[in-house]
Amino acid sequence: MDVKKKSLLLHERLKGKIEVKPRVKIRTMEDLSVAYTPGVAEPCLAIANDVSLSYLYTRRHNLVAVITDGTAILGLGDIGPEAGMPVMEGKALLFKTFGSVDAIPLGLKTKDTDEIVKTIQTIACSFGGINLEDIAAPRCFDIEKRLRQTLDIPVFHDDQHGTAIVVAAALINAIKLSGRQPNQLRVVINGAGAAGITIAKFLGQFGIQHITVCDKLGILSPDDSRLNHYQHEVALKTNPASIKGTLSDALQNADVFIGVSGPHCVTKEMIRSMDPYPIVFSMANPIPEIAYEDAKDAGAFIVGTGSSKYPNQINNVLAFPGIFRGALDVNASEINLDMMKAAAVALANSVPEKELSPTNIIPQAIQLSVHQAVASAVKRAAVATNVARVQ
Amino acid sequence: MDVKKKSLLLHERLKGKIEVKPRVKIRTMEDLSVAYTPGVAEPCLAIANDVSLSYLYTRRHNLVAVITDGTAILGLGDIGPEAGMPVMEGKALLFKTFGSVDAIPLGLKTKDTDEIVKTIQTIACSFGGINLEDIAAPRCFDIEKRLRQTLDIPVFHDDQHGTAIVVAAALINAIKLSGRQPNQLRVVINGAGAAGITIAKFLGQFGIQHITVCDKLGILSPDDSRLNHYQHEVALKTNPASIKGTLSDALQNADVFIGVSGPHCVTKEMIRSMDPYPIVFSMANPIPEIAYEDAKDAGAFIVGTGSSKYPNQINNVLAFPGIFRGALDVNASEINLDMMKAAAVALANSVPEKELSPTNIIPQAIQLSVHQAVASAVKRAAVATNVARVQ
Repeated sequence: MDVKKKSLLLHERLKGKIEVKPRVKIRTMEDLSVAYTPGVAEPCLAIANDVSLSYLYTRRHNLVAVITDGTAILGLGDIGPEAGMPVMEGKALLFKTFGSVDAIPLGLKTKDTDEIVKTIQTIACSFGGINLEDIAAPRCFDIEKRLRQTLDIPVFHDDQHGTAIVVAAALINAIKLSGRQPNQLRVVINGAGAAGITIAKFLGQFGIQHITVCDKLGILSPDDSRLNHYQHEVALKTNPASIKGTLSDALQNADVFIGVSGPHCVTKEMIRSMDPYPIVFSMANPIPEIAYEDAKDAGAFIVGTGSSKYPNQINNVLAFPGIFRGALDVNASEINLDMMKAAAVALANSVPEKELSPTNIIPQAIQLSVHQAVASAVKRAAVATNVARVQ
Repeated sequence: MDVKKKSLLLHERLKGKIEVKPRVKIRTMEDLSVAYTPGVAEPCLAIANDVSLSYLYTRRHNLVAVITDGTAILGLGDIGPEAGMPVMEGKALLFKTFGSVDAIPLGLKTKDTDEIVKTIQTIACSFGGINLEDIAAPRCFDIEKRLRQTLDIPVFHDDQHGTAIVVAAALINAIKLSGRQPNQLRVVINGAGAAGITIAKFLGQFGIQHITVCDKLGILSPDDSRLNHYQHEVALKTNPASIKGTLSDALQNADVFIGVSGPHCVTKEMIRSMDPYPIVFSMANPIPEIAYEDAKDAGAFIVGTGSSKYPNQINNVLAFPGIFRGALDVNASEINLDMMKAAAVALANSVPEKELSPTNIIPQAIQLSVHQAVASAVKRAAVATNVARVQ
């Protein structure tokens, strides 16, 4: 049976991948009066006097909302919040399995930026963190920015930062293996949505200076009026001379291809036109920019994909459970750039140097130690940057 | 140690009375690809084609949001959504313990009716039902009404309907014991908030025709300009002649007192002025309108309170878990009057006739069979009134 059928059957049998469980048994009327009324008035009053005690007396200290508007679910696009829910529940499942984080999936029945922001601001007091998920660009950038400015809990958009962190980790190790220097590397990113834009910005943090970003119409250029604000910003930085060209032009003599776009847009010839021993991350899901076998066949030195069928699966699951675990452990007020960088480095380092190889640049998500390493690194970075409210 | 200290310690130790648990183990990369990407795309696409499948492939079929704005938490008043969270978590705990319902507590950081309605409308697609909780009157009436009109899932305000159902159940049994006829009964309700107004309306469903509603300033009268719309509606019905008077006046020769107000507003003399063998439900929490002992001492035949320390605890926990269990089991589109009446009758009947006594008119919440009886009755009523979407 293929994975599609298996998944449908699993979902039908489970009727929900997560559930809510009591942490205390109620067997007697006395139990009831301690856990509920009249006893419960005491923690209520304590929190009313000092709202920070909501992290002590309720589940808030370990609770993240996984929120989507259903507009960019996987590679399926705008299929609505109800249809996105299996992904959100999956995310919640993985948050608990790999990070011991309680996560609650929430779909929002609106595509309006103001309404999304307002809704999340209104419910945020119930949570210790907000994980935005599968919200279409460029709306996702505005939403995240406004929430970060107004909320005092971590806000993280996994499609942006989760992807950027895991790509950076994979690239750090690929660079080690290929003996190149970050500042001499020529990187081409295809896809100028949530992931592509954020990867372009984030890689700069690791000394990578030469980045070209493409979308369907070719190299992003600051004089292109169809770009949104965020694309324009990146185009200004990566292509100040407004050089024009196709993805094929961009790839000539490049060292690295990072695909967060769609199926079949890269050919063997394009891989052959790159610098010798190119690094190819072909991550579109379910059908990549170029198939693993074709990329290898065309001479790619290291190939990463989004699929678990091949080596080097570049998978967001490697990032978000540990990142929120670390942030929640110190009641961080945000997840900042230093915390994200620390996560990427911890991920890269969790493949021991002697085990590094072209088919092993990134760990597998089912290794619990990886998530623990990410959490520790994030925690330290939160403390170092003074966003930890407990230590 | 008293219940207050015990409760504070319990909450500190538990750090949350509920948590999110996986319903499937992820041990291998294959598990991950079936429960999460790429397999999860299949249930997503199925729901995109038929949104009703969200009840099959996700937890929605068993999931209720417990929502407050923090404005009327227990008897503590407007202490904010964070401070209300121990009550909401408690509710979620009891939903699962007694009704096997997954419930997610949500506090809303707003007191604006429009914003509350809008927020709940936006997130409702994630849930199979909405339980409103501890929202101040009269806002709670507007919010519930607008949500009922616009959502296709059950909306239930526990402080209104839960209280009314349990009071009605207790009164049904008290009437049986006292040999009175409902249509000759004179009932006085003190308190004209969420509970009082809804009890006044709901008791009419059981043949009770003579009801007087009082608040701090005495008998509600339709010519009183300070009444809100909902109070005015009830005053018109219960006091069309605009009779004026105090609570003390109202109680003279009354058969039943129902207190959902505040401490110490009823004296022994007032009880003595009632009809012989009066029925007294003195439910203000933590301090009742008149103490159990004082009411008995003044000649009350049956006394019910809100406290587990005395016989006949009139406790909402008897209603909401079974009501939502029944509604969710048949994917009801609403919780209507017939379902509420069925719940009250089932609750009353769960005290066997031969066990009925003045100190045993209502069952204890820890008896699981009570909740099952309520659920069955609610389910049947949903089917009979054509609001069940599955059977």
